[in-house]
Amino acid sequence: MRVDEITETELIARFAPMLPVGVRTVLGPGDDAAVLTARGDLVVTTDVLVEDHHFRTRWSTGADVGWRAAMQNLADVAAMGAVPTALVVALTLPPWTPVAWVEDLARGLAQACEPHGVGVVGGDLSAGPALSVAVTALGELDGRRPVTRGGARPGDVVAHAGVLGRSAAGLALLAAASEGVTSLPGGERLVEAFRRPDPPLLSGVDAARAGASAMLDVSDGLLRDAGRIGLASGVRLDLSRGLLAPGVDALAEAAQDVGVDPLTWVLTGGEDHGLLATFPPSVALPPSFHRIGVVVAADVPGDPGVTVDGATWAGPLGWDHFHAT
Amino acid sequence: MRVDEITETELIARFAPMLPVGVRTVLGPGDDAAVLTARGDLVVTTDVLVEDHHFRTRWSTGADVGWRAAMQNLADVAAMGAVPTALVVALTLPPWTPVAWVEDLARGLAQACEPHGVGVVGGDLSAGPALSVAVTALGELDGRRPVTRGGARPGDVVAHAGVLGRSAAGLALLAAASEGVTSLPGGERLVEAFRRPDPPLLSGVDAARAGASAMLDVSDGLLRDAGRIGLASGVRLDLSRGLLAPGVDALAEAAQDVGVDPLTWVLTGGEDHGLLATFPPSVALPPSFHRIGVVVAADVPGDPGVTVDGATWAGPLGWDHFHAT
Repeated sequence: MRVDEITETELIARFAPMLPVGVRTVLGPGDDAAVLTARGDLVVTTDVLVEDHHFRTRWSTGADVGWRAAMQNLADVAAMGAVPTALVVALTLPPWTPVAWVEDLARGLAQACEPHGVGVVGGDLSAGPALSVAVTALGELDGRRPVTRGGARPGDVVAHAGVLGRSAAGLALLAAASEGVTSLPGGERLVEAFRRPDPPLLSGVDAARAGASAMLDVSDGLLRDAGRIGLASGVRLDLSRGLLAPGVDALAEAAQDVGVDPLTWVLTGGEDHGLLATFPPSVALPPSFHRIGVVVAADVPGDPGVTVDGATWAGPLGWDHFHAT
Repeated sequence: MRVDEITETELIARFAPMLPVGVRTVLGPGDDAAVLTARGDLVVTTDVLVEDHHFRTRWSTGADVGWRAAMQNLADVAAMGAVPTALVVALTLPPWTPVAWVEDLARGLAQACEPHGVGVVGGDLSAGPALSVAVTALGELDGRRPVTRGGARPGDVVAHAGVLGRSAAGLALLAAASEGVTSLPGGERLVEAFRRPDPPLLSGVDAARAGASAMLDVSDGLLRDAGRIGLASGVRLDLSRGLLAPGVDALAEAAQDVGVDPLTWVLTGGEDHGLLATFPPSVALPPSFHRIGVVVAADVPGDPGVTVDGATWAGPLGWDHFHAT
């Protein structure tokens, strides 16, 4: 059954019961706006996923897309040192979209949100020429100061929680498999990492409590996002190939299968949504964070904000949304 | 210049300075999430506008679209009895979108938000096959209880603040003009009402303070939205043709030009985003609200939730997003 074969009310009635309520929700979907309890400053972020730009329906189920749309927003909340509380979702559906796909999307949103007490508290439906899922996430700081991108200082430790390059590896394996290059030997876990990135959401609060000086989630690749902290803080993050080696080695087999350098996945692969943070040298890193570099002074105006073992990386940096790089 | 001829960073640098900061904003765009001060329960709502479904670029400028995207969300916030504080905007742009259109959109968002102290605090950009603007709005209840759709009781007064049918009339005039039927004699104000609906945002708080028992903003037409209060409250809103007459008469000339019954515009025209509320009979209506009917008991299971002078309306009710009605 397609979405244009039932009414909007009937469609909503099918997926609304699947959506989690959330622990901070006073009033959920169905009115002009949802109502949440708030106990102090809050954070808000939005991200949109568009079919054939951020996902392909032949490589990701509706539930995968729902999961990913939720997680990348929840990771943005976590990267401020906040606890995610609620999502709203604006959905654009071509008329031929299967109703089952929309139900599946709701299932994926719920799977991502429910374990974290996050409610899916509202939304909007529209017809349109392409599937698109615009999610806005809210979170609470519970009295803490937000951890921005701008607080890194020379001498700080650069550390990362979560995985690097896994989503990119999984996507490359899917692409290779679709061209018949490989039958994904041993790659199921990587494909799953692409379909269902599982960022360490609780590590954001841990980092804030430990005294992180800067933080973001790695959406567009480690180099590009590390450079963002560097530029916002007026410093340079110098990453260490040696400290990144365990993550690189874990991807070696898959990389060989598709003929790429696994270091490229680790440095430029996006969408794992791990947390990249800097910590003053005196701080004991929270257990989920691994040291991957050090903050140094920016040398000159136009400093790239990021280097690897002191050198500018020669390859592409990651994603820009209107250009292939 | 098209958006694919400059980088995402350059594009953002062009419109970001136009966006209003907002009186509750601690940290605006540019980090993983924005930070807002919150003083109690908050409301959140989202709406997406898609090109050729919610707007046409030949009938609305970028600024018109920005204004409308903001206002319809701010009206949802107001309809809960809340004060709007902030927006985030997820924008999907085809590669051929003129940069000037995006700048114009930002201008329209700012024009709608700035007078109300509302900040545009964050956003996301994506490429995609159609222009789409997904806005999420936040608001504060400042300690008041939210006014839902579910509190109307028999005997309550039905009242409306704002205009009815103007946006529909303006759209009809534009459509007629594009077919050469009319040169919009005297219709400029109606076309402006379509392009720039100006809902009475402050009236939402006024209604809440006065003790409104139910409220929503009229997005999809008076009958359809009145029926929503009726069904949510388990009552029926009986509207009075006599009380609606002044609004109908104001549209008579335009209606004659395009050969429609102006009552249809008033009853079924959407997108004016006026506030429809019910008040206990003892309440003195806030000055911006006009009585247009009375709440009666629902007669039977399946009661439509809305009537006009006691009778079910025979015409179409308004919009359903996947079907023409």
